[in-house]
Amino acid sequence: MSVTAAKGFTAAGIAAGIKENGNPDLALVVNVGPRRAAAGVFTSNRVKAAPVLWSEQVLKTGQVSAVVLNSGGANACTGPKGFQDTHATAEKAAEVLGRGAVEVAVCSTGLIGVLLPMDKLLAGVETAAAQLSEHGGEKAAIAIKTTDTVHKTSVVTKDGWTVGGMAKGAGMLAPGLATMLVVLTTDADVDAGTLDEALRAATRVTFDRVDSDGCMSTNDTVLLLASGASGTTPEYAEFADAVRAVCDDLGQQLIRDAEGASKDIKVEVINAASEDDAVEVGRSIARNNLLKCALHGEDPNWGRVLSAIGTTRAAFEPDRLNVAINGVWVCKDGGVGEDREKVDMRYREVHIVADLAAGSETATIWTNDLTADYVHENSAYSS
Amino acid sequence: MSVTAAKGFTAAGIAAGIKENGNPDLALVVNVGPRRAAAGVFTSNRVKAAPVLWSEQVLKTGQVSAVVLNSGGANACTGPKGFQDTHATAEKAAEVLGRGAVEVAVCSTGLIGVLLPMDKLLAGVETAAAQLSEHGGEKAAIAIKTTDTVHKTSVVTKDGWTVGGMAKGAGMLAPGLATMLVVLTTDADVDAGTLDEALRAATRVTFDRVDSDGCMSTNDTVLLLASGASGTTPEYAEFADAVRAVCDDLGQQLIRDAEGASKDIKVEVINAASEDDAVEVGRSIARNNLLKCALHGEDPNWGRVLSAIGTTRAAFEPDRLNVAINGVWVCKDGGVGEDREKVDMRYREVHIVADLAAGSETATIWTNDLTADYVHENSAYSS
Repeated sequence: MSVTAAKGFTAAGIAAGIKENGNPDLALVVNVGPRRAAAGVFTSNRVKAAPVLWSEQVLKTGQVSAVVLNSGGANACTGPKGFQDTHATAEKAAEVLGRGAVEVAVCSTGLIGVLLPMDKLLAGVETAAAQLSEHGGEKAAIAIKTTDTVHKTSVVTKDGWTVGGMAKGAGMLAPGLATMLVVLTTDADVDAGTLDEALRAATRVTFDRVDSDGCMSTNDTVLLLASGASGTTPEYAEFADAVRAVCDDLGQQLIRDAEGASKDIKVEVINAASEDDAVEVGRSIARNNLLKCALHGEDPNWGRVLSAIGTTRAAFEPDRLNVAINGVWVCKDGGVGEDREKVDMRYREVHIVADLAAGSETATIWTNDLTADYVHENSAYSS
Repeated sequence: MSVTAAKGFTAAGIAAGIKENGNPDLALVVNVGPRRAAAGVFTSNRVKAAPVLWSEQVLKTGQVSAVVLNSGGANACTGPKGFQDTHATAEKAAEVLGRGAVEVAVCSTGLIGVLLPMDKLLAGVETAAAQLSEHGGEKAAIAIKTTDTVHKTSVVTKDGWTVGGMAKGAGMLAPGLATMLVVLTTDADVDAGTLDEALRAATRVTFDRVDSDGCMSTNDTVLLLASGASGTTPEYAEFADAVRAVCDDLGQQLIRDAEGASKDIKVEVINAASEDDAVEVGRSIARNNLLKCALHGEDPNWGRVLSAIGTTRAAFEPDRLNVAINGVWVCKDGGVGEDREKVDMRYREVHIVADLAAGSETATIWTNDLTADYVHENSAYSS
């Protein structure tokens, strides 16, 4: 499954010794063709890790033969040496696979500001190449985990073609994109332009709307590789739907595994004057630490929702706002609505609806609660 | 001291029964003149509490005779009834003090979305009026506490005139302004226009740069009242300095008492292309949950500082950024700098310097760490 669910791909995941604890930390995904079309979306953080700077250049060719991914180190804020290391990694993979380095994308994740142990990493690329398999998708997904408690994979199979993928990410999930590495593969026979269009359309409404802690990573990368091995060229709409479905599923898995979270929170903004307004309001609610604490405490504190909406530039009148929590309209016309005692907060999923009463646009942002476990996980050691 | 340090003011603080635990919850500050000039700064949250909407109108006259402040309820998101309640509070104070209601400002703090117990509040105004005293400033400061562990007062005395004040605020400290109520008084003989200019200049670089948890309140109010009782009209610059000094001191007290905090963090942005850039970068760093957790864990995780800088629109080149933590330049030219082991993180104060190498402007934002205690305090009960 995972990146090897679609025909025309092999993968491997191994322990190269980059992580001190000996866990798997290096994955390799290879497109064996016949087509090698690819598209990529990268972090909008202006401080970009070396592998992001490299892979952005690779993707400009619209062609990717292989992806090397490592956990155990982000290779971010590592200066010219860090970039040389990424380049050397691509060269090594190109050499062992008999491809050009310019067709090898590189992704890294882990602590910022530390150089990678290149001897181990380069040796690991050789080892991984020797283990490449049409069944290696699962191992690859496991090797890219950092603080993830589970590995994340997803597959959608259509009439004769497939889109599958793997993702890693648990903290620092925020737009543009979440802190995550994602590799999607398909055996559909589509060109790079189509891949790019479908991938951007999908990430805009999935990964870009997953906002765990408002923090934006230096390393986020989402790649979509097409082998053409199915010999089928689907209709664009159907293909885009499949890509979005896989992205949506992986995004949900990221939120469910967010560091320390005890609640998955769906923030649905309705009746906004524009989609941008809906997204801005949704993000403001999703990033409100006080609300996230209250929801952790199973307190349907709608005042904190209104307080968050009030910080935005979206079109709304304060005395026309309505808020529902888990189906109960606890705030009506900007004031007290139904009895908050009616809100059942016992379950992991929390559904907030914010009605701006200003139009007909809508957007949904996914986040999670703020917990003592999150604080512990992000203060007890460097990550 | 507090609001009665300056001549021409009386104050009182009592337990009116608004708080269920019986703690003091109602304060009254009266300007006995001869002058009654005033200025005010209010939250920029678009969802404003009833007392903010009322007091904004009062301040348009440039004159305030009295301020009624209550803790135990924010009277925010309470609709037309909430506004009527604020109006009735001002009318009651006007009646017992023999002033016009339009000269009575009202401030409330506490849970959003709950109506105040008006019978208790109005009776409390009468009780407080009977206890007004030139020594009542301390009791008034105590009565406006919510989750504050200590009450906050400050006084600056100059040649023949004084500026003093009180503040409350512990969580939800964020610009525009922090979640706080502040009343400043002076016996300097200055007009409303001068008060307004001095107050705005002071809050812009003090309360507006205190950002505990990125959350902006619906109730923030800072008032400055002048009695003219000293008979002295200071030079503007000297007066503005004194107002800023009191605001700065109270702002520091707010940060030191922030909910659950174990570290006071000073984020100093230097060599920015503009002051706006410096403030934007400072806020981005101050609001980064991952960094705030790391600092709680005494981890000088400068990668999270760079990651936060990278999300801004400020002018900078990633490979020219420098970051010092407690005097050690752990990041130089966007990469690894001095040994992070040299950073001494044992003390409560943490000093981050972010050098954008893009100009000569500077700004300082104050925040605190993110702790399990913060989560507990904001999830265990409604606030």
